[in-house]
Amino acid sequence: MSFHEDGLVALDWVERYLERVGELPVLAQVEPGELRSRLPAHPPEEGEAFADVLRDLDDVLLPGVTHWQSPRFFAYFSTTGSEPGILAELLTACLNNVGILWRTSPALQELEEVTLAWLAQLLGLPDGWHGHLEQGASLSTLAALAAARQAKPGHRVVVCSEHAHSSVDKACRLLELDLRKVPVDDAFRLRPDALDLEGACAVVAAVGTTSTTSVDPVAAIADACEREGVWLHVDAAYAGAMMVCPEFRWAFEGIERVDSLVVNPHKWLTPQGCSALWSKRPDAFRDTFSLVPEYLRTSDDVVNFSEYGPELGRGFRALKLWAVLRCYGRDGQQEHVRQAVRLAELFEGWVRDEPGWELCAPRPFSVVCFRRDGTDEENEALLARVNAGGEIFVSHTRLNDRYVLRLAIGNARTTEDDVRRAWDVLREAVA
Amino acid sequence: MSFHEDGLVALDWVERYLERVGELPVLAQVEPGELRSRLPAHPPEEGEAFADVLRDLDDVLLPGVTHWQSPRFFAYFSTTGSEPGILAELLTACLNNVGILWRTSPALQELEEVTLAWLAQLLGLPDGWHGHLEQGASLSTLAALAAARQAKPGHRVVVCSEHAHSSVDKACRLLELDLRKVPVDDAFRLRPDALDLEGACAVVAAVGTTSTTSVDPVAAIADACEREGVWLHVDAAYAGAMMVCPEFRWAFEGIERVDSLVVNPHKWLTPQGCSALWSKRPDAFRDTFSLVPEYLRTSDDVVNFSEYGPELGRGFRALKLWAVLRCYGRDGQQEHVRQAVRLAELFEGWVRDEPGWELCAPRPFSVVCFRRDGTDEENEALLARVNAGGEIFVSHTRLNDRYVLRLAIGNARTTEDDVRRAWDVLREAVA
Repeated sequence: MSFHEDGLVALDWVERYLERVGELPVLAQVEPGELRSRLPAHPPEEGEAFADVLRDLDDVLLPGVTHWQSPRFFAYFSTTGSEPGILAELLTACLNNVGILWRTSPALQELEEVTLAWLAQLLGLPDGWHGHLEQGASLSTLAALAAARQAKPGHRVVVCSEHAHSSVDKACRLLELDLRKVPVDDAFRLRPDALDLEGACAVVAAVGTTSTTSVDPVAAIADACEREGVWLHVDAAYAGAMMVCPEFRWAFEGIERVDSLVVNPHKWLTPQGCSALWSKRPDAFRDTFSLVPEYLRTSDDVVNFSEYGPELGRGFRALKLWAVLRCYGRDGQQEHVRQAVRLAELFEGWVRDEPGWELCAPRPFSVVCFRRDGTDEENEALLARVNAGGEIFVSHTRLNDRYVLRLAIGNARTTEDDVRRAWDVLREAVA
Repeated sequence: MSFHEDGLVALDWVERYLERVGELPVLAQVEPGELRSRLPAHPPEEGEAFADVLRDLDDVLLPGVTHWQSPRFFAYFSTTGSEPGILAELLTACLNNVGILWRTSPALQELEEVTLAWLAQLLGLPDGWHGHLEQGASLSTLAALAAARQAKPGHRVVVCSEHAHSSVDKACRLLELDLRKVPVDDAFRLRPDALDLEGACAVVAAVGTTSTTSVDPVAAIADACEREGVWLHVDAAYAGAMMVCPEFRWAFEGIERVDSLVVNPHKWLTPQGCSALWSKRPDAFRDTFSLVPEYLRTSDDVVNFSEYGPELGRGFRALKLWAVLRCYGRDGQQEHVRQAVRLAELFEGWVRDEPGWELCAPRPFSVVCFRRDGTDEENEALLARVNAGGEIFVSHTRLNDRYVLRLAIGNARTTEDDVRRAWDVLREAVA
C-alpha cells in the first residue's frame, strides 16, 4: 500500500468513527488486563501493512476505548476534538517540527505568539501578556508555581482552596512547597477572609473548580496578594475558554491583576495537548527556565519559548489552536459554549423539579452536581449501574462529605436528546 | 465544505509536502517577527473554511517553517515523522482520548504498557521494567530525578558529566538539587574515577551525549552507584532506539543495573511527543507523583500512569509508537538505523581524507563532529553561510573550547546523494 492509499483508509476510518461514536458504549466495557492479553506479547520482526494496524484498532483496541468524542460523555470535563483540530493534528505530525529555539521553527514560535494574543483578545484579557502553550494544565501550573517560587525566595507556601485541582498538590510536591488549604464558602468558593499569606509565594485561585466549577473571587484575592507581594496564579483550565462569551466575564473580574493564568483550549474545541499559559511577569519564567547550552546558542535576537517552561523540544501546538480559532471564529466558539450551558441549565431544571433528587451545588457553567436521595453507597451503586450500561458516562465527586453525581456538558455533538436520554437513564437506574 | 472534502484536501497537502520537502529551504529563511507581522492582529469573528487555513499554511507559514522532515536536515538530531506515525496521529486526534485513570481509556493505558514492553524487547532491555511515555526527554528526566530525590531523602546532589544534556540542569533547578559535573575523558565520556558521590541522590549517565554522542561507561558508573546506594538514570534519548541493532549494544553494557532509562522513539521514526521512560523502581515514581483526589477515585484495581509522572491528563502517545513498531518491524527499524550510521561513516571518511578539515570527536553512531582549519570565527561564519543557503541545515557545538560543526543523520529520506551534497555545500562555502 502507498501512503496515498493508507491515508485514504485512515481518513475514512476517522469519518466513520465520528459518525458512529454516539452508538458505541461510552465507558469502555472491558476488564483490567483484557486488552493487554489480546495484544501480542512480542513486536513483529517484519513490517506489517498499515491496514493491519487499522484492523486491530477496530477489533482489539476499540472495545477498550472510552469514547471522549461521544455526545453522551458527561464525565470529568466533556470535551471535543473538533474536525478542524483533528486535521490540524495531521498537518502537525506531517511537519514534525520541534520548537527548541526560534530558528528551529519560526512558524511554530510566532504562530504561538499570535494565536495566544488572539485568544487573549477573545477572552477579554489585557494586551501584552506573555503567552505560550504547554501540553496540559498540570505542566502550566507547575511552571507558574516554579516562577512564583523563584520570584520570592524564602517563601515556601502556596495557598489555595480545598477545591483546588490536584495539579496544585502535585506541583507543590515537585517544587517542595507547602500547601495551605483555605476553606470555601457555601458555594464552594475560596473565602478571602480566611486567606493566610504568611510565608506564601503564591496563591492559586480557580475560575471553575473541578468538582463544581465554582469561581473563587479573584479580585478580592488579588487585593490580599498585592498587599503582601504574593504571586496570584489563576487556574481557569476549564472555564477560561468560556469567557469568549461576555455574559460569563463576571468570573474574570480582577483578572487583569493576576500574575499568571492557565486556560485549556483543549477543554473545549481543540484536541488534547493545548494548554495556554499567560503571565505578565515573563521574566520570572525566564529566570526559572532559561538555560542555553553551547550547542543551542545562536546570534538570533529572539524569544525562545523553551526558556519559559519545563520542555526543551516543544511541539507545534499552535497549529491546532489556529485552525480552531479560524474555523469556528468568535461566533462559533460562543455558540458552542452557550449550547453547553443551555443544556446544563435544562438538566439542572429537570433535577430540581423531580422529587427524590437534589441539586448539590450552584451551576455557574455547564456542570451539574446532583444526587439521589439516599445513602452514599446507594448513589455510588447507581452511578456504577449507569456507567456499566454504556449508554452514558457520568462521574462523581464529594461535596460536604457526601457522594455526589456530576454531569458535565461540552461535547459539540451533544444534543438536547442526549441530555434527555442521560436523565432517563439515571432515573431508570434507580428503579 | 464537509469534513470529507476538507480531509481529502488536508491529506493531499500532506502527500505533496512529503514529496517536495527536499526542495524547500531547510532552515527557514525569515527574519524574527516577519511571520508575526504577516498574520492578522485579530482573530476572525466568523468561522472560515478549513481551505483558508491550508492556503495560509502555504502562503504565510511555510516560509517560516524549518523543515525537520527534509532529507537535508542535519542539525541537532535529525529525525523522521514517518508515514505510519503521521497517520496514527490523525487517529489519535480523532479519538481525543485523555488518560487520567485506567478507565478513562483502558486502550491508551494498556497499549502503552504493551508497546513499552515490545520496545524493551527490541532494545535488549530486561523483562519486567515499568515503562510509560512522557512527552519528551526533559520531562522524563525530570520525573526520574524527582523519583531519585524522593528515594534518598537528605541527598541533594545530582552527578553527571560536563557533556550531559541541559535537561539535567533544568530538572535540577526545578527540583532544587545541586548539580556536580564530572570531567570527561578524551572521547568525551564521563570519567568514573572522577565520580564523587558524596551527598548524591542520583547520577545521570548518557548513552549518546548531545554534542558528540559519546557513551558514558554505564557498567563502571553502576559499580559506584550500587556501592553508595545512588540512583542511576541513563539518558539514551538519542542512541537508545539504535539498540534495536545488536551491533550497538556494547553501549548498553550494564543497562540492566540502572534505576531508570529514557529513550526517545521520536528521535527516530515516531512523530514528536514520544519519550519512553523505564524504571525498575516504579514505587519511587508512585511515591513521588501519586495523588488521587476524590473526583478521580474508582474501585478499579489498576495502575494509572498519571500516578507515575507530572501529568494528569495524558495523550494517547502509544498509538503512534504502535503504528511505527508494527509498520517497520524489527527489520525496518534496524535498516533505518544502519543506513543513518553508514551515511555518517561515509561523511566521516570524506572529512578525514580531505586536507584542511579535521574530525573533532569519535563517531560511535550517526553524528559527525568536525571543523575547518582556522579560527572559531571562521568556522562560525562558514556555518552561517551554509545555513543561509537553505540547501542544508547543520548545527554546531563546542569541544575542548573550540567551535565545532556537527552533522547529524537520521531522516529516513536522506540518501547518499544528500550527504554528498552536504559535503559539497560545506566545501563550496569555504571558497
